[in-house]
Amino acid sequence: MQLGFIGLGKMGSRMASKLLRERHDVVVWNRSKKAVEELKTQNSKLKITPLRQGFEGQATQKLKVAKTIEELVKSLEKPRVIWVMVTAGEATENVLQEIGKFVEKDDVIIDGGNSYFKDTQRRYEELKTKNIKFLGLGVSGGIIAATNGYPLMAGGDKSAYDYIKPVLDSLAKPNGAHEYFGEGGAGHFVKMIHNGIEYGIMQSLGEGFGVLEKAPYKLDLLRVAGLWQKGTLVSGFMLDRVVEVLSKDQKLQDISGVIEESGEAGWTVEQAKEEGVPIEIIEKSLEFRRRSQKDSRVSASFAAKMIAVLRQVFGGHEVKKR
Amino acid sequence: MQLGFIGLGKMGSRMASKLLRERHDVVVWNRSKKAVEELKTQNSKLKITPLRQGFEGQATQKLKVAKTIEELVKSLEKPRVIWVMVTAGEATENVLQEIGKFVEKDDVIIDGGNSYFKDTQRRYEELKTKNIKFLGLGVSGGIIAATNGYPLMAGGDKSAYDYIKPVLDSLAKPNGAHEYFGEGGAGHFVKMIHNGIEYGIMQSLGEGFGVLEKAPYKLDLLRVAGLWQKGTLVSGFMLDRVVEVLSKDQKLQDISGVIEESGEAGWTVEQAKEEGVPIEIIEKSLEFRRRSQKDSRVSASFAAKMIAVLRQVFGGHEVKKR
Repeated sequence: MQLGFIGLGKMGSRMASKLLRERHDVVVWNRSKKAVEELKTQNSKLKITPLRQGFEGQATQKLKVAKTIEELVKSLEKPRVIWVMVTAGEATENVLQEIGKFVEKDDVIIDGGNSYFKDTQRRYEELKTKNIKFLGLGVSGGIIAATNGYPLMAGGDKSAYDYIKPVLDSLAKPNGAHEYFGEGGAGHFVKMIHNGIEYGIMQSLGEGFGVLEKAPYKLDLLRVAGLWQKGTLVSGFMLDRVVEVLSKDQKLQDISGVIEESGEAGWTVEQAKEEGVPIEIIEKSLEFRRRSQKDSRVSASFAAKMIAVLRQVFGGHEVKKR
Repeated sequence: MQLGFIGLGKMGSRMASKLLRERHDVVVWNRSKKAVEELKTQNSKLKITPLRQGFEGQATQKLKVAKTIEELVKSLEKPRVIWVMVTAGEATENVLQEIGKFVEKDDVIIDGGNSYFKDTQRRYEELKTKNIKFLGLGVSGGIIAATNGYPLMAGGDKSAYDYIKPVLDSLAKPNGAHEYFGEGGAGHFVKMIHNGIEYGIMQSLGEGFGVLEKAPYKLDLLRVAGLWQKGTLVSGFMLDRVVEVLSKDQKLQDISGVIEESGEAGWTVEQAKEEGVPIEIIEKSLEFRRRSQKDSRVSASFAAKMIAVLRQVFGGHEVKKR
């Protein structure tokens, strides 16, 4: 189907490319023009195999570039579908405000960023009064999901979710999935908790490999991680990334353990305290990241380095070199 | 190959059955005779398909039962191979002492339990002076590894590891693996850290699902967990068990959140402190379990119930019904 796509960062550019490969018509806008040019270049070489009775040719033939958000919105067929994939908070708010000036009744806006679920709830309600259909949609799977398939956590307007299924199906191919969790901010709520758990899992692996690295035995950490992949209780997505990391450098010598954090774990902690439920280790994992930004004893630890470099490999995040 | 097998608990009985199915000659001894009878019954119906030029018939024809440890040891061909699969600590020490009275030069003893690596190191050294070959071997994968294949973490005598490879290969089939990590207690060291990480991952999931369960949205937790399996950053062995748990009962109504703990996480914390490396959340996860045993506010939490029931499904551990 035809859709507008705003935000060509590490996740967005890959998602837009995937949609082009899947024969959707994509009209993009991005603040930096460099990312737009890269998207064009990447997809110019890509031949699209024909559908039974459809389009045949290059991915870039399905790509249009808008100069402004206004142009993007106005160039779309109604009801419009606009996917926003920019940093949560101010950047998302600004883009949504700008889109809001031009969209009309029955248009669909999707926020695929990591927005706070209360913001999503508010936007959903505000837009509903104008008959604009809003979806807050959490995207996981990291950059490799471009190949493996995105897992997508949707919340908001159910009819919009049903309407954009062809897009969601394409993004989920081959091993991802999408699911609708309820109205308002339900999708972003589920994504928020996912990220809180992720912090805990990363910290667990970081701490564990930190102990292994100083073990009284000369352990080959890559062989340890490799064996653990074979059906142990700690196997999974994040351990697979540990293997990726260690296969490049077992010492993590050039890695700085200053770990960035986005908001979701903090919101998870806040939410847990509101609900009065245990949140001890997700909170500790968050604190560890914050301390790594100020205390060089923390950032010098193998645990902190492991967590920092894991972020890099799954998310394409920058890691400070020492 | 022929081996003695001592300890037919939740893990041991399944491993012995697997070895029988894989056409090894197994001489068993177990303190309780009930487990021996169950092993016989389970395997009496099991026809073994013929090897190219080997045994054909029932699994029980490859099974012998010894009345005492002495009888078990003496009935084995030399060099003997004896696998011990009993609770770490006193039970393991007693069994090893008893075996020690009858084994001879070049015999192989494997401790497949969760022994403290320092005990394994000591036993390895003591037995080495008598030319007895000792392996400390961590077994993961839970009870489903009987089908999926065991991941096995070996340490100790390298020539013994090489010698028993046919047994390890059989236990690892089809998707497990085995790996030798070094002399002495290296295998149990690796298993100890595995268990420490496991505590952190379980606590992360417990806390996360605890927040979801009290969410301001009516969430279908099984659908959340099911979506998260599809390539998210939190997917893995333990999340698969969460799906198993929730598919039976989303409320965990009949579950008591009193969580037992074995020693490995505590040893991991101790080791980390010796090494001076971060261990905050593994320590917190352990403390949470200990508090769940004394404080009903903790054991009544959804997080505690989830952790308790996860232990049950992967390990066949008993969960107290409320």
